[in-house]
Amino acid sequence: MRLQLALDFISIEEAKKVLKEVEDVIDVVEIGTPFLLQDGLRAVSKIKNAFSNLTVLADLKVMDAGRHEAKMAFDAGADIITVLGVSDDETIKGSVHVAKEYGKEVLIDMINVKDIENRAVELDQLGVDYLCVHTAFDVQSLGLNPLEELSMVSKVVKYAKTAVAGGVKMETLGQIVLMNPDLIIVGGSITSKDDKRVAAIEMKELIRNTSKEA
Amino acid sequence: MRLQLALDFISIEEAKKVLKEVEDVIDVVEIGTPFLLQDGLRAVSKIKNAFSNLTVLADLKVMDAGRHEAKMAFDAGADIITVLGVSDDETIKGSVHVAKEYGKEVLIDMINVKDIENRAVELDQLGVDYLCVHTAFDVQSLGLNPLEELSMVSKVVKYAKTAVAGGVKMETLGQIVLMNPDLIIVGGSITSKDDKRVAAIEMKELIRNTSKEA
Repeated sequence: MRLQLALDFISIEEAKKVLKEVEDVIDVVEIGTPFLLQDGLRAVSKIKNAFSNLTVLADLKVMDAGRHEAKMAFDAGADIITVLGVSDDETIKGSVHVAKEYGKEVLIDMINVKDIENRAVELDQLGVDYLCVHTAFDVQSLGLNPLEELSMVSKVVKYAKTAVAGGVKMETLGQIVLMNPDLIIVGGSITSKDDKRVAAIEMKELIRNTSKEA
Repeated sequence: MRLQLALDFISIEEAKKVLKEVEDVIDVVEIGTPFLLQDGLRAVSKIKNAFSNLTVLADLKVMDAGRHEAKMAFDAGADIITVLGVSDDETIKGSVHVAKEYGKEVLIDMINVKDIENRAVELDQLGVDYLCVHTAFDVQSLGLNPLEELSMVSKVVKYAKTAVAGGVKMETLGQIVLMNPDLIIVGGSITSKDDKRVAAIEMKELIRNTSKEA
């Protein structure tokens, strides 16, 4: 079970500072959508060059032009890109095809997919690497959380790895770990803390201890 | 009826060259998703500064964090941003709220919306400025085109303006103009031509002449 740190509202310089604190604790660093929007794929190149030991996920949220956008991101140094589960199958296929050519990976963001279970089955057949349930930032305040969706996806996938994102906190982490996803994505619960290293270590420890118990 | 030129796979310098040729012919310049991915919001700022007479649309395809991403793009100089029709209503509301604060606009990209008619009615009620039917690049080769969807949306909207995008060509432009959308978005049919100015003028003339006949 790997831990991914999402960096969203941050500059390249600030991101480097945060990563120096936590690079030996986390497994994957996410260049979040707002970070990409601000700096473009430069953000991916700079972070990958500075932290080549880390897996870099670029949160493109691809909705169209799957081949082209995948190529651009992998050329910039991304190891994993995100593609929206609500996109057309042709877009999924295009990005998966390019990822396989590069020996890289595609994570499908299931954000706002209405029929999670059936779509998960379809996407699993298309050869995607990860299916990620994701409670949108914009609906987290409504009290929604990704646990139920994670359970649905975990039940039906045969090939893809599973991931979970969206408001994951220390208080909800234990429950999530018990459902055994392959990748847990955390943002503000680490980046908003004064001591980000301690926050990341606490989460990593909780993951380790809870997995052992399970 | 306004003409928007979409710039997708292009550098900031090349974009400026193209715009020098066509700035008095087109009404809106689109900083396309791959262009944004490459350069980030710098692309928007640089183009808006150099061509302040043009309306600049930033094709963010917002799927989450509507308020935050809208703010970032308007601060960078965008006049219109795109938000995905498949996103949650909270994301739509957030971006519309910020757009109204800034006196700017939101265009909803209806790409891969399954129930176009009902979703158009919902979005129209949320106060969006444009509803744009959009045949994904990745499915244009399957022979799909946005005419039928444009007809459905035009029939049901009461408040929003309408727009159409996705493989619009000289050969299909006449039919589209007859359906009277407020904004027609063209990419490759202008940018792939040796003489982009002539191509843009031909389209603008066809729009003018067909609108007169209708």
